[in-house]
Amino acid sequence: MSGHGQTAAPPLPLGDRVAERVAERQSQIVLGVDPDPSRLWPAAREAARADGEPLVRAGRAVAAHCRLLLDAAGGECVAVKFQVACFERLGAPGWAALSDAIGAARDRGLLVIADAKRGDIDISARAYGQAFFGGSEGPFGPLPGLGADLLTANPLLGRDSIAALLSEARPAGGGLFVLVRTSNPGAADVQDLQLASGETVSDALAALVTDLGRDHVGVHGLSDIGAVTGATAPQHLERLREAMPHAVMLLPGIGAQGASGEGLEAAFAPGPAGGLVSASRAIVYAADARGGGDPAAAARAEAARLRELVWNLYA
Amino acid sequence: MSGHGQTAAPPLPLGDRVAERVAERQSQIVLGVDPDPSRLWPAAREAARADGEPLVRAGRAVAAHCRLLLDAAGGECVAVKFQVACFERLGAPGWAALSDAIGAARDRGLLVIADAKRGDIDISARAYGQAFFGGSEGPFGPLPGLGADLLTANPLLGRDSIAALLSEARPAGGGLFVLVRTSNPGAADVQDLQLASGETVSDALAALVTDLGRDHVGVHGLSDIGAVTGATAPQHLERLREAMPHAVMLLPGIGAQGASGEGLEAAFAPGPAGGLVSASRAIVYAADARGGGDPAAAARAEAARLRELVWNLYA
Repeated sequence: MSGHGQTAAPPLPLGDRVAERVAERQSQIVLGVDPDPSRLWPAAREAARADGEPLVRAGRAVAAHCRLLLDAAGGECVAVKFQVACFERLGAPGWAALSDAIGAARDRGLLVIADAKRGDIDISARAYGQAFFGGSEGPFGPLPGLGADLLTANPLLGRDSIAALLSEARPAGGGLFVLVRTSNPGAADVQDLQLASGETVSDALAALVTDLGRDHVGVHGLSDIGAVTGATAPQHLERLREAMPHAVMLLPGIGAQGASGEGLEAAFAPGPAGGLVSASRAIVYAADARGGGDPAAAARAEAARLRELVWNLYA
Repeated sequence: MSGHGQTAAPPLPLGDRVAERVAERQSQIVLGVDPDPSRLWPAAREAARADGEPLVRAGRAVAAHCRLLLDAAGGECVAVKFQVACFERLGAPGWAALSDAIGAARDRGLLVIADAKRGDIDISARAYGQAFFGGSEGPFGPLPGLGADLLTANPLLGRDSIAALLSEARPAGGGLFVLVRTSNPGAADVQDLQLASGETVSDALAALVTDLGRDHVGVHGLSDIGAVTGATAPQHLERLREAMPHAVMLLPGIGAQGASGEGLEAAFAPGPAGGLVSASRAIVYAADARGGGDPAAAARAEAARLRELVWNLYA
């Protein structure tokens, strides 16, 4: 259970918060942050300094990289998505860097998506919820969580595993993006399996999303349970939108993964905040695609280009 | 890619390592460690001391708790399973505690299972593999991983997501426990769905486990890809064993979750190491079940009782 919000005013429902933030910032772009210590911007590499163990140095450099990236491209985006694996491989210094970067993103008015794809049974799922949302209380005092707004969640363990995450997300005003149809080739192996009912596994997951979000739809028509629906598979989008009329769809895959941004109409059927479009390498390595130059300027320009592209198509 | 093992002798295949460790220790018991800061042993609470932030104090206390628990009950077990969620909710100090506890477990000759249920696409899955197994290399020097022997893995993202984890596990001599049929009530919502083929989703996951492990079966008949198959659903075990003749089965659910240890014959069909039986609360809180007393002595006694029970049934 969150340590926050029990005496303060209840937070705005997550779906409304997403809708209002998209309108304010006129952006549906999610800045994907998945730092690779071997490919940091030069100014961030310098922040590693020479002292300390490699993990500590790498953690410092990654935190600096995140702040530089947020400063460069954050203004064109509505949210930032941190790939948690990239921080975990740096151990405790990586978690400190993730916590720092989440704070920096919130300070800049960005919604924070923790892309951790967690899923576990009851008490363990609640512990993950405490880690990523509002924290927990204990005999040593308040144990703060990371303060994310949204967490990606893996539903293979079923309804109770997602409900346990929600029991921590909701009191903190947070929400989930449940994996429904991912953008990788292997998604077909399990998510596209045909059920005896005639549907697919993804269809069953979509029904679960709708059911768990039913009583948490805000005034803008969006619930606090969104769905990960890969933009590289637009042929699935229309069917999934019908099954999840109130879900914010997180659409990874634009840019480096190859999708053009077109063909996503179904995602935006509930309005401009019906879909959030993620781009990672396309932004952070934009200078490479242009043959060099200042990585920050190139990142900002590419984020601006994507923002306008998507906004003009779907706002 | 692991930084280890490229010039040294290749590590023993994981399946053989499990088989030999079970035989040496005459135990198939996995000590489940999922520390709750509110329910630590008194001696561990004292280790938190009064100085430092709550997260730092809680991290110190949890690390002490793990060492006490390993000292008390580790000798009766073949492996220890760390529930990663319980460490993550303590942030960076929690990761430091997890790293310390994994080192302590290895020092005591225990196999280390990281129960993290990770699953992600290609590059992110490899980053998780680096985090939990052998680490990575970078411009700041070697970035060590946690050094686990086995990681629990969620296969919803399909074959390529599991293959990416294996690409990091195998060079480090590690392996996976893939979620095939979990022990929670919600497992039925997705894993038990009937496919058009007449099988269930779990059956399809079992086939994936067998296929990916086919070329990595050791001399004891066990591969490096095991499966999580809940002991609370023994009716599924026989079918799953037929589908996965070489998989080590991780059987959670004995003790606090209610299973008695009987009805698991199918798991042990390949031999005494065909199944590993996990117990968490039943061991750590054994003193409570006995109405009080020294928690360490009660934990050791309960672990010994479970070890004998399972060994006598299935060795």
